Amino acid sequence: MSDSSKHASPAIILVTPQMGENIGASARAMLNCGLTDLRLVDPRDEWPNIKAERAAVGAFEMMPPVKVFATTSEALADLTYVYAATARDRKMAKPIVTARYAATEAKDKIAADGRIGFMFGAERMGLVNDDVSLADALVTVPLNPEFSSLNLAQAVLLVGYEWQMAGDATPPTQLDTNGSPLATKEQLFDFFAHFERELDACGFLRNEEARPNMVRNLRNMWSRAHLTEQEVRTLHGVVKELSSLREARGRKTQD
Amino acid sequence: MSDSSKHASPAIILVTPQMGENIGASARAMLNCGLTDLRLVDPRDEWPNIKAERAAVGAFEMMPPVKVFATTSEALADLTYVYAATARDRKMAKPIVTARYAATEAKDKIAADGRIGFMFGAERMGLVNDDVSLADALVTVPLNPEFSSLNLAQAVLLVGYEWQMAGDATPPTQLDTNGSPLATKEQLFDFFAHFERELDACGFLRNEEARPNMVRNLRNMWSRAHLTEQEVRTLHGVVKELSSLREARGRKTQD
Repeated sequence: MSDSSKHASPAIILVTPQMGENIGASARAMLNCGLTDLRLVDPRDEWPNIKAERAAVGAFEMMPPVKVFATTSEALADLTYVYAATARDRKMAKPIVTARYAATEAKDKIAADGRIGFMFGAERMGLVNDDVSLADALVTVPLNPEFSSLNLAQAVLLVGYEWQMAGDATPPTQLDTNGSPLATKEQLFDFFAHFERELDACGFLRNEEARPNMVRNLRNMWSRAHLTEQEVRTLHGVVKELSSLREARGRKTQD
Repeated sequence: MSDSSKHASPAIILVTPQMGENIGASARAMLNCGLTDLRLVDPRDEWPNIKAERAAVGAFEMMPPVKVFATTSEALADLTYVYAATARDRKMAKPIVTARYAATEAKDKIAADGRIGFMFGAERMGLVNDDVSLADALVTVPLNPEFSSLNLAQAVLLVGYEWQMAGDATPPTQLDTNGSPLATKEQLFDFFAHFERELDACGFLRNEEARPNMVRNLRNMWSRAHLTEQEVRTLHGVVKELSSLREARGRKTQD
């Protein structure tokens, strides 16, 4: 029986990576996205690698040990479905999916006990076709066709990000009200009354003909701001202080 | 009248960026995603910057000149809606949206003549709260809460990627058939007939009781492979050659 927890998220396989910095930055990007199964096929430099450690800014300490393999076949051996990340068309009869599609598909396959891997080639060259032929599907990231070359770690990040998003429950939009509930309409209308009373008192609304439209415009403005209770209290204070300033000045003028 | 083409995609504003490498990598990530309006607020090092040039791997040559401003207010002056990228909760009464939501919202606002910016803070510190208060909304990228610290250029990449995806028409899944059409069922069934005839001839299907199930299993396997016309032709050839090998051996044995 396979250890299912071990395969709860996809493996990332870097085939013949050249620079330690890119391996480390890939590990950081993986952990950003909750991925921890990093496999290297025949890395150019020795492993472990101090440049990789530095670029990972602590990611390796929070992941199982990186596995190093001599061949791509060995690195993929325990997996059941493998995506090959490629930028260019490979002229191979194979499904081509976007990273977004792959993430959802991988989630479904893992739920059905699949063990998934995403395979990336070396910097500059990418995967060789013999490696691509071992994969089940090609995964691509749709980018600016005139400038699509991605750094290795950034390619890993985008694939990982889609994996993370496919399981994410963050509400797409919410309002941080800084601890204060949103004002009710009654609280808002009380403020309208206070505000308009003071505008009448100071003469701002003295043009009777323009008054109704002006009042509506101001109410529309406050309505669009979606005020919190705290903000309504603050605005009451602002109007009160501005009015008392006017009153004080008025008294002074009379002196 | 504003030059609408100038604002057809969002501006990226980097506030007090420290390292040239990160500015250059951000420019590369921007151009990967079709964004070209890069603005710097009070960068630590002189501008232009050779480290930025190197990290951009040619992106600056394909973008309008980077604009440098002394203050955040100046950098945002011509925009109508600004998102502040923040990782942590700012305790401010403001909408908080995911990068994915922001991308769609930004597309809608631009379609309605809005001029959009995404503002990023310095490495390590992020945006100061005085800068955040100038923005209309906070944009966040939902990542592994235990390891969410993103490199500046990677944050720019994820926001840019969502922008790019919001306007992308790439089919999420397709089959590259390497120039050959998919085989029709008739072509597939012809191959089944050829294959099974040779399996009968060589004796592989000699067990009459097991034969129907075995045949169904093999047909299921070929059906799942979604063969192209070229692949069916190749398989006819494989079966023919394997059979002739058997026949040749048969002749040899008889010699």
